[in-house]
Amino acid sequence: MIKKGLLVIGAALLLLSCGENPTKKSTYVKNITELNAAIKNAAPGDEIVMANGDWTDVEIRFIGYGNDKNPITLKAETAGEVIIKGKSDLKLGGEYLLVNGLYFTEGSSPTRSVIEFAINQDTVANHSSVRNCVVLDYNKGQRNQTDIWVQFKGRYNELDHSYIEGKANRGPTVRVDLEGNRSIKNYHKITNNYFGPRPPKGGPSAETIQIGNSYTSMAPSYTLVANNFFDRCNGEVEVISSKTNFNEFRNNVFYKSEGSLVTRHGNYCIVDGNYFIGDDNSEQIGGIRLIGTGHWVMNNYFYNLKGKVFRSPLAVMNGIPKSPLNRYIQVTDVVVAHNSWINCTSPLQFGVGSNVDQKDVLPASEIRSERPIRTIVANNLIYNEKSDKQPIIAHDSLDGITFKSNLINNQGGSLKYSSGFRQEEFLLKELEDKILISSGDLPEFELYQGFEFDQITKDLFGNSRMTMNSVGAISGTSVEKPNLMDLSKYGPDWYALKSVDNASAKMHAAGSVSELETAIQDAKSGDTIILTADRYELKSSMKINKKLMIRSADADSKVAIQYLGAPKTPVFEMNPKGHLILKGVNLKGTNSQYAFASLQSNMSSLYNLNVNDCEISDFDYVLKGYKYSFSEYIKFNSTLIKNCANGLELSAENDDRGDYNAENIFIDNCQFENVNKNVIDYYRGGYDESTVGGNLKVTNSSFKQCGFQEKNGVLINTYGIINVDISGNKFQNNKVELVARLWGAKNNSHSDNVIENSGKLVVEQNLPLKLMY
Amino acid sequence: MIKKGLLVIGAALLLLSCGENPTKKSTYVKNITELNAAIKNAAPGDEIVMANGDWTDVEIRFIGYGNDKNPITLKAETAGEVIIKGKSDLKLGGEYLLVNGLYFTEGSSPTRSVIEFAINQDTVANHSSVRNCVVLDYNKGQRNQTDIWVQFKGRYNELDHSYIEGKANRGPTVRVDLEGNRSIKNYHKITNNYFGPRPPKGGPSAETIQIGNSYTSMAPSYTLVANNFFDRCNGEVEVISSKTNFNEFRNNVFYKSEGSLVTRHGNYCIVDGNYFIGDDNSEQIGGIRLIGTGHWVMNNYFYNLKGKVFRSPLAVMNGIPKSPLNRYIQVTDVVVAHNSWINCTSPLQFGVGSNVDQKDVLPASEIRSERPIRTIVANNLIYNEKSDKQPIIAHDSLDGITFKSNLINNQGGSLKYSSGFRQEEFLLKELEDKILISSGDLPEFELYQGFEFDQITKDLFGNSRMTMNSVGAISGTSVEKPNLMDLSKYGPDWYALKSVDNASAKMHAAGSVSELETAIQDAKSGDTIILTADRYELKSSMKINKKLMIRSADADSKVAIQYLGAPKTPVFEMNPKGHLILKGVNLKGTNSQYAFASLQSNMSSLYNLNVNDCEISDFDYVLKGYKYSFSEYIKFNSTLIKNCANGLELSAENDDRGDYNAENIFIDNCQFENVNKNVIDYYRGGYDESTVGGNLKVTNSSFKQCGFQEKNGVLINTYGIINVDISGNKFQNNKVELVARLWGAKNNSHSDNVIENSGKLVVEQNLPLKLMY
Repeated sequence: MIKKGLLVIGAALLLLSCGENPTKKSTYVKNITELNAAIKNAAPGDEIVMANGDWTDVEIRFIGYGNDKNPITLKAETAGEVIIKGKSDLKLGGEYLLVNGLYFTEGSSPTRSVIEFAINQDTVANHSSVRNCVVLDYNKGQRNQTDIWVQFKGRYNELDHSYIEGKANRGPTVRVDLEGNRSIKNYHKITNNYFGPRPPKGGPSAETIQIGNSYTSMAPSYTLVANNFFDRCNGEVEVISSKTNFNEFRNNVFYKSEGSLVTRHGNYCIVDGNYFIGDDNSEQIGGIRLIGTGHWVMNNYFYNLKGKVFRSPLAVMNGIPKSPLNRYIQVTDVVVAHNSWINCTSPLQFGVGSNVDQKDVLPASEIRSERPIRTIVANNLIYNEKSDKQPIIAHDSLDGITFKSNLINNQGGSLKYSSGFRQEEFLLKELEDKILISSGDLPEFELYQGFEFDQITKDLFGNSRMTMNSVGAISGTSVEKPNLMDLSKYGPDWYALKSVDNASAKMHAAGSVSELETAIQDAKSGDTIILTADRYELKSSMKINKKLMIRSADADSKVAIQYLGAPKTPVFEMNPKGHLILKGVNLKGTNSQYAFASLQSNMSSLYNLNVNDCEISDFDYVLKGYKYSFSEYIKFNSTLIKNCANGLELSAENDDRGDYNAENIFIDNCQFENVNKNVIDYYRGGYDESTVGGNLKVTNSSFKQCGFQEKNGVLINTYGIINVDISGNKFQNNKVELVARLWGAKNNSHSDNVIENSGKLVVEQNLPLKLMY
Repeated sequence: MIKKGLLVIGAALLLLSCGENPTKKSTYVKNITELNAAIKNAAPGDEIVMANGDWTDVEIRFIGYGNDKNPITLKAETAGEVIIKGKSDLKLGGEYLLVNGLYFTEGSSPTRSVIEFAINQDTVANHSSVRNCVVLDYNKGQRNQTDIWVQFKGRYNELDHSYIEGKANRGPTVRVDLEGNRSIKNYHKITNNYFGPRPPKGGPSAETIQIGNSYTSMAPSYTLVANNFFDRCNGEVEVISSKTNFNEFRNNVFYKSEGSLVTRHGNYCIVDGNYFIGDDNSEQIGGIRLIGTGHWVMNNYFYNLKGKVFRSPLAVMNGIPKSPLNRYIQVTDVVVAHNSWINCTSPLQFGVGSNVDQKDVLPASEIRSERPIRTIVANNLIYNEKSDKQPIIAHDSLDGITFKSNLINNQGGSLKYSSGFRQEEFLLKELEDKILISSGDLPEFELYQGFEFDQITKDLFGNSRMTMNSVGAISGTSVEKPNLMDLSKYGPDWYALKSVDNASAKMHAAGSVSELETAIQDAKSGDTIILTADRYELKSSMKINKKLMIRSADADSKVAIQYLGAPKTPVFEMNPKGHLILKGVNLKGTNSQYAFASLQSNMSSLYNLNVNDCEISDFDYVLKGYKYSFSEYIKFNSTLIKNCANGLELSAENDDRGDYNAENIFIDNCQFENVNKNVIDYYRGGYDESTVGGNLKVTNSSFKQCGFQEKNGVLINTYGIINVDISGNKFQNNKVELVARLWGAKNNSHSDNVIENSGKLVVEQNLPLKLMY
């Protein structure tokens, strides 16, 4: 008996000594009070189960100390059925904590983060995971209200198999912080997540992942970002902004994301085996942009990318001499090896950002004159089904770059820089949609054996390069399909990705004002409302907070909407996520109101507006975008605008911090008559050359008797807008000094305009802008 | 038989497979041709033996590929008896090479380095060692001719048990290069070396060890500098300049070295268990100066240091906001724990270099306004036998620093900043000379347990802190003596350190010009020549290239030396290493010559000059220091200087790069009469605030009828000199605008001067200086 007892004690000691908790308990909690109590009492190995249902206005502080074998778990009763809403957040502190299955939606954080791996400066979380969770549209009220949705601190933490979509306000979606020794050498992992669409913010600070910042750019980080899907992460020019050292980016898919993976600060990062998938219709989708020292870029696959310069498939930047901490360190000691560019436009660009020609207008500390040096570009593959005019663009000298053993099939197109490139005819075959591999006829080819190239042991698919090796990202001709678009690999199992199902869109007929009001209220996003009456007299604004088409029943005849609402109210009040397509309407005010306007505040997400075949008259403003509002698309087609005090006013961002009010404004085949001022007033302030918006196209339109009350003397104001195209228009009898003042150093152009008695259209090479840094 | 044969083959295979070379050979070589052939034929495990004797003008290119178990060795037949001289150097390339026992002296490198771990950019050495070697006075002709004596490249290389002394020209003694991926993560070791005296250079670029540079300051280096003795390494303000990441400095002795160990660029370095030994007579001997992020400073022992500000025992600097790459990164996340400061003056200084008050005269990119943050100072010990007025100096706010559990015995002296310091009476006892340890009466004391403080497992002597721990560098009261000054632990066994043996100094009597000339030629360094005649007529210059005293036989009566040499020749030509002490001489020219001058070129080392009880008259120049010449000490005492066109001219360094011509100029109790211009002309140009020289003292002297041909209108020109003291002097009837223009922002002062009819003595707070960076 004694012996047996000793054995039992021995076994118990053994268990305890391994960190085992023989009395693991599970606690079911129904509200925050019970949850707090359970957290307080949790021991290693315990789990806390949150009851299904809504948890509103809860600030969860999950503090606990589990261990390697026995984490403390906080989980949903049923994954996805615990809804965290209202003013709620989750912060973790301690060791070995696991959060599983929570769904954050219909609310916003009351603090600076939705999920944070820290309670405060001293209490961070380590070895902790957030898994299988969703954060959806959990936006603060307005885009200038900053937060982070997942904020990493501490060490060895993970975000995995989660889904995050819809951040529209200021601040990266996910950020890793490295202030303090507790948070360096962090080895965090961000893996197998689905990053759903993030709309453009119109200005900086809208990265999907940011790792560190310039002030901690010297810190060793070792963050791993692997096996994630980035679906249209369009927040700003940087989808991922790596700002610390030794980070690794492996096997992610960047799907039609309007931005790039950027090694913005910090050095010695690895970018290995990622997919960058573009789209014929977007010149905003980028690839990899490199700044700094010692990065290795290998096994990456770039497909159908049309991004330019900063957003080119591979943009290797110029640096600033002795760069300030927050600007551009020279590229040195970088290796770009075994990548494939398929059907990309000018995929390889070097010396990007060179602005030596601006040295008279910018301070010396802004001049990127230092070209890449000690950089190797070897064993890469370029393949174009149609010849590309300039596969390689040199914005500065290439003499610091060693090109070796690269293979290109440009369908006979010429190659301006051909040193280190072998031009051959060969075919690729489709392994699956978007993935082309060798069809077996690659020429005999001696690969370059660079320093430590023997450490590139695997290809894009993880197949060994030791037995068989070849140029480009994919080695071999008979390989398994990667199933690139199998989205089940990403995010939580329980969260079915919403598909935009236009088939389910409904039609609503509205024959009266009240029917119209009811239809707008009842319609689901994507529905169409058909105006069946000839005339409507509206007395109050219509709130647009979803995607709606409103159109005349008869495509050939316009319906009249007379607006009698209060002064300074809009006919259509554009709310967050509102998207109005208006067609065949004669919209008329009584001179004091607005045709369209954003909310004055609380624009927690963006709005869009398409106006076709309409007539708009007798308003104070045609469109007024308030400060902090943002629209991705504003399109006017075949529309007559007349007798208005103001036209399209999208210039409320006057802080000169790079923000602006609309990403794209397209005016085609329209007529402006008697619009007194602000005919088109579109503004972006602050010198931030990495911003590549907004975009204005004014084409095939006419402007008559406009602008005679314009104080600044410019009919179409585009100050600070990067891409402007004014062409095929007719300007007659507009009492202004200038039709427009374009920015020659940027992508501003004009052509085929007829200008009569309307001032001049001038192009200035450089605009004075307030420096942001 | 077959079986046995197989076994033999098997054994051979086994040997080969382990990298063994069963036929190791030793090749004896007598000249460079044989050496080159032997190198060419060397296989792993082979050794090449260089014959004893002189090897003159040899450029050794030691290229070979040894392996882990079988390096290729190049060694002296007898260590120390292979003398490499003339225009010679040694470069290594390949793997596993070992160099042993060579002696570089009486020559200089024909290239940019004496010993280099690289043949060229592509062929570096790895896993190679230079051991048991000496490099002595192997200077290039002039101090502006740059070289490196041991240049590291590649990875895993070592310099150990070697002796290096006397570098006087531009360039660090030892430098680690990190350009290119081949040379990062280098894990080089610099261990057990004796770094003998390096004289001050008078300007930057005279470090004893430099690891990287600002352009590679982002690179991971991992260089180890351990167990070395730095003996009066006075080249410049930085004895060691760490400019990359993750370097380690352990258990070194810095003995009366006029400079500091500086983490100049790069971050996350470890400074653990070093000794910094000062001297009552020097305010130039520093300790550790910190710039940047994440350094750990622990277990260091500081004794009797009197250095100030930049050279204070611990100088924690202020940074520049968003600093340019080559300037001052803010101090963040630094830990200073378990160090001891014994009898140091103002040992802890924070915010060093703060120059916010200069913001109107310097560009913003030069203003060090960012105080240290997230920095911990804990568990340290300060002990003063005599009360120190200000043990802690705050040059800026201390609010970013956490002080915890520091113990101080300031003998009752007050403590301005006392938070985190416990003031107690306790005694230390002498373990050995310069080493004080607890006598057992330290108060009960709770140590601070900071983040990762558990990783400070050992104390200064390597004793465990796990069982017993206490404040300061040394834990415990009964410990073994470190034998700090046992110099046999450093450098090669075969090289006996030269001791300056004044007992062997000889006297030489010189009763005629020819006897004087012979005596100067024959005398050994340290000897004295006694002038026994009353008068000498010299027709040519006397070359001083060693330490000599020349004095009158009778201390009370001066000997006349009439110089009749050619115009522009000096009576005493100061050669490299020349040190003249002239006493009781009446030195007279014929107006066209110089009393003293350096060589016009080829000043490969410095000179010194002491003039006592002399009279100097009728010269063109009293002293002319040519460009690239340098003197550590120029002293004039009780000497009359009259009827000269020029006085002391030490202003030939006009490149404004921080260089200057003399470290110390001391004039005491002298009379200047009828010196027309350049009475004292001492100049340093270029704004380089880390330079802390030169030093000028003019005391108790008189100036009459001087300066009437002075073009710049200033009698005593001290432009750019950091430390100036003009006091107790009398200025009468000097036709100048200013007696002096002092630099108030630096350590310039004046007092008790009588000024009659001689212009003004003004102090200007800020001088316009050319920025060097």
